[in-house]
Amino acid sequence: MKLGHECGLFGVHGDPEAVAMVYHGLQVLQHRGQEGAGIASTWGGVIRHHAAPGLVTQAFSDPAVLERIRNPIAIGHVRYATTGGSLDPTNVQPLLARFAGGPVALAHNGDLTNKAALRAELEAAGALFQSTMDSETVLHLLARSGETEVEQGLRRVLPRLEGAYCLLMLVSGKLVALRDPLGFRPLYLARRGRAWMVASEDAAFHLWDGIEDVREIEPGEMVVIDERGPTSLRFAAPRARIARCIFETIYFARPDSHLFGRNVHLTRVAFGHRLAREHPVPADIVSAVPDSGNSASIGYSRESGIPLDRAFIKNHYVGRTFITPGQEARQVKVRMKLAAVREVVEGKRVVVVDDSIIRGTTSSSRIAALRQAGAREVHLRISCPPTRHPCFFGIDFPTPDELIAANMSVEETARFVGADTLGYLSEEGLVACVEGARDTWCLACFDGDYPAPTPGDFLSGDSPPPA
Amino acid sequence: MKLGHECGLFGVHGDPEAVAMVYHGLQVLQHRGQEGAGIASTWGGVIRHHAAPGLVTQAFSDPAVLERIRNPIAIGHVRYATTGGSLDPTNVQPLLARFAGGPVALAHNGDLTNKAALRAELEAAGALFQSTMDSETVLHLLARSGETEVEQGLRRVLPRLEGAYCLLMLVSGKLVALRDPLGFRPLYLARRGRAWMVASEDAAFHLWDGIEDVREIEPGEMVVIDERGPTSLRFAAPRARIARCIFETIYFARPDSHLFGRNVHLTRVAFGHRLAREHPVPADIVSAVPDSGNSASIGYSRESGIPLDRAFIKNHYVGRTFITPGQEARQVKVRMKLAAVREVVEGKRVVVVDDSIIRGTTSSSRIAALRQAGAREVHLRISCPPTRHPCFFGIDFPTPDELIAANMSVEETARFVGADTLGYLSEEGLVACVEGARDTWCLACFDGDYPAPTPGDFLSGDSPPPA
Amino acid sequence: MKLGHECGLFGVHGDPEAVAMVYHGLQVLQHRGQEGAGIASTWGGVIRHHAAPGLVTQAFSDPAVLERIRNPIAIGHVRYATTGGSLDPTNVQPLLARFAGGPVALAHNGDLTNKAALRAELEAAGALFQSTMDSETVLHLLARSGETEVEQGLRRVLPRLEGAYCLLMLVSGKLVALRDPLGFRPLYLARRGRAWMVASEDAAFHLWDGIEDVREIEPGEMVVIDERGPTSLRFAAPRARIARCIFETIYFARPDSHLFGRNVHLTRVAFGHRLAREHPVPADIVSAVPDSGNSASIGYSRESGIPLDRAFIKNHYVGRTFITPGQEARQVKVRMKLAAVREVVEGKRVVVVDDSIIRGTTSSSRIAALRQAGAREVHLRISCPPTRHPCFFGIDFPTPDELIAANMSVEETARFVGADTLGYLSEEGLVACVEGARDTWCLACFDGDYPAPTPGDFLSGDSPPPA
Amino acid sequence: MKLGHECGLFGVHGDPEAVAMVYHGLQVLQHRGQEGAGIASTWGGVIRHHAAPGLVTQAFSDPAVLERIRNPIAIGHVRYATTGGSLDPTNVQPLLARFAGGPVALAHNGDLTNKAALRAELEAAGALFQSTMDSETVLHLLARSGETEVEQGLRRVLPRLEGAYCLLMLVSGKLVALRDPLGFRPLYLARRGRAWMVASEDAAFHLWDGIEDVREIEPGEMVVIDERGPTSLRFAAPRARIARCIFETIYFARPDSHLFGRNVHLTRVAFGHRLAREHPVPADIVSAVPDSGNSASIGYSRESGIPLDRAFIKNHYVGRTFITPGQEARQVKVRMKLAAVREVVEGKRVVVVDDSIIRGTTSSSRIAALRQAGAREVHLRISCPPTRHPCFFGIDFPTPDELIAANMSVEETARFVGADTLGYLSEEGLVACVEGARDTWCLACFDGDYPAPTPGDFLSGDSPPPA
Repeated sequence: MKLGHECGLFGVHGDPEAVAMVYHGLQVLQHRGQEGAGIASTWGGVIRHHAAPGLVTQAFSDPAVLERIRNPIAIGHVRYATTGGSLDPTNVQPLLARFAGGPVALAHNGDLTNKAALRAELEAAGALFQSTMDSETVLHLLARSGETEVEQGLRRVLPRLEGAYCLLMLVSGKLVALRDPLGFRPLYLARRGRAWMVASEDAAFHLWDGIEDVREIEPGEMVVIDERGPTSLRFAAPRARIARCIFETIYFARPDSHLFGRNVHLTRVAFGHRLAREHPVPADIVSAVPDSGNSASIGYSRESGIPLDRAFIKNHYVGRTFITPGQEARQVKVRMKLAAVREVVEGKRVVVVDDSIIRGTTSSSRIAALRQAGAREVHLRISCPPTRHPCFFGIDFPTPDELIAANMSVEETARFVGADTLGYLSEEGLVACVEGARDTWCLACFDGDYPAPTPGDFLSGDSPPPA
Repeated sequence: MKLGHECGLFGVHGDPEAVAMVYHGLQVLQHRGQEGAGIASTWGGVIRHHAAPGLVTQAFSDPAVLERIRNPIAIGHVRYATTGGSLDPTNVQPLLARFAGGPVALAHNGDLTNKAALRAELEAAGALFQSTMDSETVLHLLARSGETEVEQGLRRVLPRLEGAYCLLMLVSGKLVALRDPLGFRPLYLARRGRAWMVASEDAAFHLWDGIEDVREIEPGEMVVIDERGPTSLRFAAPRARIARCIFETIYFARPDSHLFGRNVHLTRVAFGHRLAREHPVPADIVSAVPDSGNSASIGYSRESGIPLDRAFIKNHYVGRTFITPGQEARQVKVRMKLAAVREVVEGKRVVVVDDSIIRGTTSSSRIAALRQAGAREVHLRISCPPTRHPCFFGIDFPTPDELIAANMSVEETARFVGADTLGYLSEEGLVACVEGARDTWCLACFDGDYPAPTPGDFLSGDSPPPA
Repeated sequence: MKLGHECGLFGVHGDPEAVAMVYHGLQVLQHRGQEGAGIASTWGGVIRHHAAPGLVTQAFSDPAVLERIRNPIAIGHVRYATTGGSLDPTNVQPLLARFAGGPVALAHNGDLTNKAALRAELEAAGALFQSTMDSETVLHLLARSGETEVEQGLRRVLPRLEGAYCLLMLVSGKLVALRDPLGFRPLYLARRGRAWMVASEDAAFHLWDGIEDVREIEPGEMVVIDERGPTSLRFAAPRARIARCIFETIYFARPDSHLFGRNVHLTRVAFGHRLAREHPVPADIVSAVPDSGNSASIGYSRESGIPLDRAFIKNHYVGRTFITPGQEARQVKVRMKLAAVREVVEGKRVVVVDDSIIRGTTSSSRIAALRQAGAREVHLRISCPPTRHPCFFGIDFPTPDELIAANMSVEETARFVGADTLGYLSEEGLVACVEGARDTWCLACFDGDYPAPTPGDFLSGDSPPPA
Repeated sequence: MKLGHECGLFGVHGDPEAVAMVYHGLQVLQHRGQEGAGIASTWGGVIRHHAAPGLVTQAFSDPAVLERIRNPIAIGHVRYATTGGSLDPTNVQPLLARFAGGPVALAHNGDLTNKAALRAELEAAGALFQSTMDSETVLHLLARSGETEVEQGLRRVLPRLEGAYCLLMLVSGKLVALRDPLGFRPLYLARRGRAWMVASEDAAFHLWDGIEDVREIEPGEMVVIDERGPTSLRFAAPRARIARCIFETIYFARPDSHLFGRNVHLTRVAFGHRLAREHPVPADIVSAVPDSGNSASIGYSRESGIPLDRAFIKNHYVGRTFITPGQEARQVKVRMKLAAVREVVEGKRVVVVDDSIIRGTTSSSRIAALRQAGAREVHLRISCPPTRHPCFFGIDFPTPDELIAANMSVEETARFVGADTLGYLSEEGLVACVEGARDTWCLACFDGDYPAPTPGDFLSGDSPPPA
């Protein structure tokens, strides 16, 4: 399974090597977006930047680029994009613009659900758009706020935004970091000596020694960092109902992140334990689909007592390979990335643990590989409930037509993917393993209960919603 | 001498190969700008574009790019830029943006003298700028005009603009071409079958057979080309005083262009005849500084009866060569581009004809080369008057401090460049050779009489001028 | 630990998509060399080729390149190189040359121990060398053999070679594959329909369905494949003493390869079992150093009953990152590639399983990371004996000065790397887990008993050894 | 007309900036080859080099490259190549190799007529060839000479070579420059302080001040430059019959070179005078085809009294432009490079002067352009005799089938190219304008009298000629 995400953020205020730190920090967050990377930095009223398609190491393959943009305040962004347009350099963040308050840079993780309505309204009022990214909307609103201080401007802009957003901004020597009132996406703050850092996941801080005061930026909180350190402002009152994305814990986040109150790896191990209790099966070995099922497979093995083994070998060197002529080219590509080990599975009853099933096609090919390698039985165990509803808050799910769980029962899905049995972790089981009550999480992709308006709510009639 | 110019324009409406035609047409106009090239094309509401630094053949080195943007309506732009920023891809035209009336592309030749004031006003009103080009101002004004039809929008925008501008625009299937009311820069229209073409110089049309109806677009005229052909509108009343840039004829334009009513080569030959009458001198040979003095040297030779020869050899292969270590590196670079032929000049009295003297340093090195090659006397003849005043209408002159004629008498200049005698063409002589009365030309670089407000006129106080 | 290897080979004879197959096959063998990749193909007396630095997908990033060299017979090579010269395109294989027998391409895995002597002899006889690769020596000897048939030529050349070599060659429509008489490096043959394939590891065959007749090419065997299929020739008599590199099984080969008679993953699991019996220790968890210790950690955990967990998270996205300024840059780089998970190890007694210790520096930083993450005890277990002697047969070991086991006792090494205890698998234990008697393996890096002359044996005196 | 030439050479011994000097010197010689450029330099037994396709400024676009190869002894080469293979980096000179005498670099201008025979002989003796350039043959012969001193080795090698060759070599701290016994191609020596320079044309020396002791290297002379300065050796006795290529004077050489005893520009002016006497015609203007006819047109105009004008404008910016779709694309490309000026030629009788006619197609399109621009009569005058025979000594003529003068009479040619009259300079006229007797020149392309064996002379039978 491969899902797209709307990015990772990393920022540093107050270190002469801020740009180099962002360069490294983004590499730790590379799993959040591999299509493009950018860094903007500032000092003395000038913003410098570089952004390009590809991995961080590809976008910044020339050390001279880092040197050219060397400044003590910097923000960076890794991007996932869904369309061919993703390689358009103008669609790589941070976004840059100049307004009455001077130059500004912005990096965005999330998805605004009222972006189309805002854009229509702005265009009607004479705004010129230069990219197709919804993040540009934020800059136009800020420019039109009439405020010269960014804090005041944002206080007027942010109530206009619906949906999921974590933002990092550079403006007039400040680094601004903020998180939407429902807190869909994670955002963390830390101190290192006199420098301050922000990151989508706290794992990125631990590249360096001397990290202190790590804390989550709260939903509805805006942190403004200047030379005196951070100042915390609230642009929205604390809410009882928040909506932390549980898919971050299930799938996206690094296992070594301590996300939303708990370590991701241990949480996933707990998913595996619970999954083994909910869906036991007699078998000879337990194996993960690497790397997505790695943590949960440990829990399943321990709980069930069935030995853990490695049924698949992953080839980490395979990058953007192209499909060559020949009818089997697609199959070749799949096998190149993940190969079954005949000697491990031949004649065996195999429990395969993965984190989710989206379309079902990847699971099918994995199970087919096990069968061809001689597995006697294949029992698929998934460490989350069936994903039946699209995400409008920053994860690039396919349409419901393509979501297999939206169209098939569990039994039908098992047949489709070729498993002897299939077990999903229950919603209750899932929530039991994470920190906080159910209404502090967004589980919309499982239960369809969206915690905020979705794009469809803004499409009634041709006119944009009243401001 | 090497002066910068703010570009060349070429557009085609109604030919399936419009993009390829623009690609070729821009190459004919390459002398008007070598720093960057771009093409935008449109069909069915979508605009495609490509722009990159370098010559046309460098910016479009991949045929697949032309194929990707293939459309029957296209405009293109070659750019000269004055700063290191010229290599910033975001500063290459045509500019693209999206406003309420849909996507728009714009290419600009000229210079707006009130650009700073307009920009300040727009930023105060919440406009986001993405480039440092004054041309972006036009798009912001158009977006804020509140008009959905481009003709109506431009009628409101253009009166706000001061200075020199020829514009090509693509918007909603139309190609719009217009020229400022004073007509500083040239712009031509032609028909080829059912297709229509516009170009900064008519020489570009003659790549193709079957060109008809070639005419100048008038000062203050806007030509809107759609599928029914061109419609001519006036956005400013005809004026008796217009201001055609005489430096186009003296220096910039191709010799085979028929500019402002007369062939450029023949006009320059006429300058040479007149120059020989105004500044005769006994000599053995007449030689041009190639290629800038080529045409005028023919006139001087014919009028004076002194034989024409080639005292210099130009190396057309030398492009962007870098200066290597060593004290003589700069001299080496000059000699590499232009070498004197000892056997031609040794012991001779040489009349050297060039089109202008700007800083005087190039003339110095040319004359020094002739002396080292043994010339007995060197008489420099310039086919225009002394250039004493900067240009604010599209030519990148140095500051008055650097203009030698603004700081030295003719005799001092002759001594500075090392000439035995120096003669400039008189203003009267110049005007006598071109078409139309003196008040139809801009001669501000010679006489300081600017035909329109200059940037200094907009700098009184912090507030922008009243709209 | 990161050791260099002298490459991977893949070849196909008799499939119209042979080049595409080699492209994919080399990706499966990418772990054997990441510095450069090349493919040569042939048909009708012409050899086409492409080779470039980088991964296979980087060296062949343009599909047009594969199309340009499309031919039904092809060989390919992935290369590891030890020096900065590795990026020199002239040092990428396959090597190409033209001799009396026509064009020839050659790819080489291994290391000739008498290469310096051969080169000196050839230069003295007027040979011109164009690369610094020892493989070029083979071509010169072939050209000078006076034979027009490659089989006859090789029969005269191969006895001159000392050391380790697997060779693939294209010459006059044939694909020749051969392995040195001691069989240091692996080489496999397979059939797919009418096509024949050769590969350094059999795992590469299994990208495709319908693979049959997989077998090892024997030490001293030359397989010549033409349109009638393969012909097996012996260029050296079978020997009782052969010298299969046991480090291929310990470290280099893919876990899903079936190398030297046994599956690599299962063999490594067996190493782990044995290691647990030889070096038991009370502990809370067992963890691999990913990915090198993955298989052995499973065996250790099963044998000891200590639960398996994941103490480290590997970042697979980090490629060639450069070191940025700042004193901690190197530590940042190490942590970016592998991070300890605090919640897994804090307060725990941890058994860490890895496959080898070379310099000890990597183990040190791994153990330091565990300590910083709060591990109470760290017990390092290595699934091979101490590596005390350099390899001259194709693995790029550091010099003895740098091999920690050549300079320290086990106790000293444990202190150096910061482990509470350190246990190496014994030589007896190692040999007990693999197929065949001890004298069919090269264990020189452990016991110093080299099965063939080493470079030092050819340096006595200035004259080359008698031919 | 565009003919290919086998290159230009430039070398410097004894200046710390030798590499930079070669970089600049090659740019002066760029007209001799535009397909590739390379420089090799040496100091202390090591040779450094860089070579790449394109112009000198493209091949050396990175100043760091010049810095990397900075050494006080250097040679360089600009290359023209006839096939698509020209972009193969392995076919760019200087060639590098290592033989028993150490590293050697070689640059070659000319063409060996017995190259195929030599190559066959060497391959039969076991030589490995790595390029397709005949120059590699020289290195193989040198390596096999058994001599350790390059002077001795070359004395044995050079008598084996037939045809045209100027060679520059770097070996063991020496720069060797030599010219074949018939002296087909030019080669010059000069001193500047303690440094010595060699160049294909003396014009390249005049980038610098202080040039002294300029002289031609004699046919059959080898100049060996070491730290004590140059030593002149003869490897072949002086001959009465030498064979200086008269096409160098007619077409290739720079007008400011003083080649084979006389300035090239003045010689071409003399050709024009003579041509006017041999082929007078009543006309209104004389015009060159720029730049090839520039010098001769001056002579024609002066002798005939018909005024000189510029009927064509050349676009120096058009480089490698590609042909876009559409039937007229080729015509567009021709016009883009050279445009006729209507106002100059309309209704006029025009004498057009060019230096040669090869295929006739270029002349046709030039004359067609004049007709379309309204010329009443077009009289073509060519400053050399009809070229009827191919060149085997370094100029890349088309085959006789394509040489129009080999297949048509003068009258037929005039009709083919569309001229009212056509006049060629006679052989007598040509020889009368140059220095030295007719038998000191090669006029084989005009009279078919080849002064040395041609490749056909070495093709009798399958066996190579006796050594």
